[in-house]
Amino acid sequence: MSALQYETKEKLSSRLAELEKVYQGYKQRGLKLDMSRGKPEPEQLDLTMGLLDCVNLREGYRTKDGFDTRNYGLFDGIPEMKEIFSGFFEVDESQVIVGGNSSLNLMFDFISMAYSKGILGNPPWSRQKGVKFLCPSPGYDRHFKITEYFGIEMITVNMTAEGPDMEQVEKYAADPLVKGIWCVPIYSNPDGITYSAKTVRRLAALKAAAPDFCIMWDMAYYLHHLEEPGDTLLNLYRESEANGTENRVVMFASTSKISFPGAGVAAMAASPDVIADVRRRLSVQTIGYDKINMLRHVRFFGSYQNMCKHMKLHAAIIRPKFKAVLDTLEKNLAGKGIAEWNRPRGGYFISVNLLDGCAKETVRLLKEAGVEMTPAGATYPYGNDPRDRNIRIAPTFPPISELQVSMELFCVCAEIACIKKMISEAW
Amino acid sequence: MSALQYETKEKLSSRLAELEKVYQGYKQRGLKLDMSRGKPEPEQLDLTMGLLDCVNLREGYRTKDGFDTRNYGLFDGIPEMKEIFSGFFEVDESQVIVGGNSSLNLMFDFISMAYSKGILGNPPWSRQKGVKFLCPSPGYDRHFKITEYFGIEMITVNMTAEGPDMEQVEKYAADPLVKGIWCVPIYSNPDGITYSAKTVRRLAALKAAAPDFCIMWDMAYYLHHLEEPGDTLLNLYRESEANGTENRVVMFASTSKISFPGAGVAAMAASPDVIADVRRRLSVQTIGYDKINMLRHVRFFGSYQNMCKHMKLHAAIIRPKFKAVLDTLEKNLAGKGIAEWNRPRGGYFISVNLLDGCAKETVRLLKEAGVEMTPAGATYPYGNDPRDRNIRIAPTFPPISELQVSMELFCVCAEIACIKKMISEAW
Repeated sequence: MSALQYETKEKLSSRLAELEKVYQGYKQRGLKLDMSRGKPEPEQLDLTMGLLDCVNLREGYRTKDGFDTRNYGLFDGIPEMKEIFSGFFEVDESQVIVGGNSSLNLMFDFISMAYSKGILGNPPWSRQKGVKFLCPSPGYDRHFKITEYFGIEMITVNMTAEGPDMEQVEKYAADPLVKGIWCVPIYSNPDGITYSAKTVRRLAALKAAAPDFCIMWDMAYYLHHLEEPGDTLLNLYRESEANGTENRVVMFASTSKISFPGAGVAAMAASPDVIADVRRRLSVQTIGYDKINMLRHVRFFGSYQNMCKHMKLHAAIIRPKFKAVLDTLEKNLAGKGIAEWNRPRGGYFISVNLLDGCAKETVRLLKEAGVEMTPAGATYPYGNDPRDRNIRIAPTFPPISELQVSMELFCVCAEIACIKKMISEAW
Repeated sequence: MSALQYETKEKLSSRLAELEKVYQGYKQRGLKLDMSRGKPEPEQLDLTMGLLDCVNLREGYRTKDGFDTRNYGLFDGIPEMKEIFSGFFEVDESQVIVGGNSSLNLMFDFISMAYSKGILGNPPWSRQKGVKFLCPSPGYDRHFKITEYFGIEMITVNMTAEGPDMEQVEKYAADPLVKGIWCVPIYSNPDGITYSAKTVRRLAALKAAAPDFCIMWDMAYYLHHLEEPGDTLLNLYRESEANGTENRVVMFASTSKISFPGAGVAAMAASPDVIADVRRRLSVQTIGYDKINMLRHVRFFGSYQNMCKHMKLHAAIIRPKFKAVLDTLEKNLAGKGIAEWNRPRGGYFISVNLLDGCAKETVRLLKEAGVEMTPAGATYPYGNDPRDRNIRIAPTFPPISELQVSMELFCVCAEIACIKKMISEAW
C-alpha cells in the first residue's frame, strides 16, 4: 500500500469511514486492557519462586563469613551481593552499594543529596539558581519526574540511533548550571537504543563546565536481551577513568526485572570519592537495607554469570510478545507513511512515532475503547512531547491474546488519528 | 555503704588502689565484648523464622484481594499491612504508609522533604536561615544525626520523669525557626521513660510559632514491654485532633525489633494532609517498597493483636538480662552517691548517670579492657553531653554470661573514674 499522503481526500475519507466502523466494533466489545506499564508477566515471576524460601531455618541465614543477615549491620550490603553487582558493573566491590528493592529510590536519593548537601564538596544545587539537567528524549518518565520534583530545569536532548545527540550534549554541558544527564544506555526506555561505543567515549571525554556534573547511568536493561548475541555496551566508568572524569559516573541497576519488581535488590556503583559521599549519607539515612533479601538472591542465582544465563528464560517468554506487536504494526501500518517504530533487540518497550500531533489523539481513542496506554508525552520532560508523536508500547505484561487485540486496535486508532490530521491540514 | 563523698581522702585512695588491681585483672583476661548496640539477640530472631518461608509457591503470593505482591504497584503498602499498622497507630488505614525495612529511613526522608521541598505548602527549610530542632536529651543518637546532617541547629531539652521538660519546649516553640521535636515517647531511648498523659496533652496543645512544626513521634518501643501490664501512652494524634494541631504529628514505627532488624517492615502515619505530601513525594521517589516482605509479616502475625502477644516471647528472653544489669549496678554502686540509673519497664536500654565529668573516662577504661560501649555523649546532640555523665547500656544482645562480666567491669570502671574525679577536685 502506498503512503497515505499521496492519496486523494476522497480515498482518505472513505478509508476513515471504514476504520471508524471497525473502531465502533471494538468499542462495543467493552474491552479492559492495560498496556501502560513495563512490568513482567506472572510467568516470568514464576521463574524465581525458588528464591522465596531459600533462606530459612534449615538452610540458615548467615553470609559466607558468618554474619547474621537477620540483625543490624552491613548498612551498604552483604559482601556476596556486592560481588554479584561488582560483576555487573565491572568495578571493584568497594565501589558498590547494595540498596533496597528500588534503583529509582537510589537515583532519587542521589539527586536529593546533590540538591540538599552537594556532592564532592560542591555547593548544594538548592543554593544555585537555574540548575539544569539534560534529558535525552524520548526517555524514562520516572527519571524526569525526579528532576522535576526538585525544580531542576530539564532540557530535552534528541535521541539518535547511537544514543543522545552528542552535539547537543556537548553544547549544553558547557554551561556550569547544567549538572548532569539521564541515560538508559542499553535498550533505552522507550526506544530500545543501545549507545554506541563512540557515544560512550564522547560522554567519557565530555567537557562539562560543572564540577559536579553527573551522568545518571541507569543500566536497567543491561541483561535484558531479546536476541542472541545481545547488544554490548562499552563500560563508561573505565572510559571515564581513562579521561580522569570517573567522578561523574553514577551507575544504577536492580533485579526488579530479573527476580521480582516488588521485591528485588537494587545497587549503585561509582568512583571511590562519590561512593564515600553516598556512604556518609546512608550511614545517617538508614540502619541498613534488607540483607535477608540480598542473601536470597545470592543463594538463588549463585553468581553473576548465572544471573546472566537466567535472563534467557525471560527472553523466551517475552520474545513472542515483541514479535506479535511488531508483526501487527508491520501488517497494518507499514508503508503508509504515518508511523515509524524501532525493532528493539532487548529491553521492555517498543516506541512508535506517528505523524506529528497524532499521539495524544491515538491514546485517547484507545482509552475510549478500553485500552490503557502510557499517556502520550510521558516519555518527554514535563510530559510534553513537542511533536506529540511518540507512544510507548509495553508488550511484556498482557497475555498474547490481549496483546493482539490491543495492537490491532492500536493500529486502527493510529490510522484514524493520522488520517483525520491529514484531512484537516492538507485541504 | 555510705556515700563516697563523705569518705576521707585516705579511704578513697585505698579504695582506688583496690579497684585498680581488680581492673588490671580484667585487662589481663583479654576480653572482647560489645555492649554498644541496642540489637536483639539471636534467640529473639529465632522466634520469627517461620516468617521467612510463609510466602512461597505453595502458599501463594497474593494479597487478600488478589494483588500479586511480586509485581509493581501499591507503592505505599499492601492493604492488610496497613490494617495492622492502623491498629498500632490507632488511625485510619488511609493515613498509614508502609515503607521498607527502616523507620529511620522514613524519618530521614521526611526531614529531607521538609528541608528540600517544604511541608504543607510552607517554604523549604533550606530557604530559611537558622532553622532549629528540639532534642530531648539524653535521646536517640540516630535522630540527632539526621537533623545534624541537614545543618539544622539542635537545641537540647532536658528529660524529666514525665518526658521532655515542657516548660523549655513551650518557650522554644515560640520561635518560628524552631521546626519540631524528636520524641521516643514510650520507653525512651535511653532513659526508658514513658511520656505522661499530661506531657502528651501539653504537646498536643503546644503553641508552636512555626506553621510547619513537626513532632517526630518515634514509637520504636510501643510494644516492647518488660513488665505486665506495660506502660500506656496517650494517643498524641487523637489529642492533637482535639486541639486542631494534628498536622504536626508524624508517627513512625517498624517491626525491626519485633521480627528482624535487618528485614522488618517500617511504617508511618500522620494527618491526611501530611500523608498526601508524603505520598506525592513517594510516588516520585520509589516504584514501591517490598510487598512480599509485607505479606510475610501479615501471614506470620495475622493481626495487630497477635503481634502484641508475640512481644511477650521477646520479653521473656530479655527480661533476665535487664535484671542482671540492674542487679549488678545495685550490688556494686548503690548508695555510693556516684551513679543513678533508671529501672525501665520496657524498651532496649538502661541509662546510667555518673558524677559529672566521669562518663567519657568510664567508657575509655572499659574500651581499654576490651568492652565496647556506646560512646559517651552519643545520647546528646552533636555527641556532646554537657555534663559528661550519661552512659547508655544495651543489655539485649550479649549472652547473659558476657553481660555479667561486662557489668561487673562497668561498675569497677565507673567507680575508678568517679573516685579519681573526687580526689582531683575535692582536695
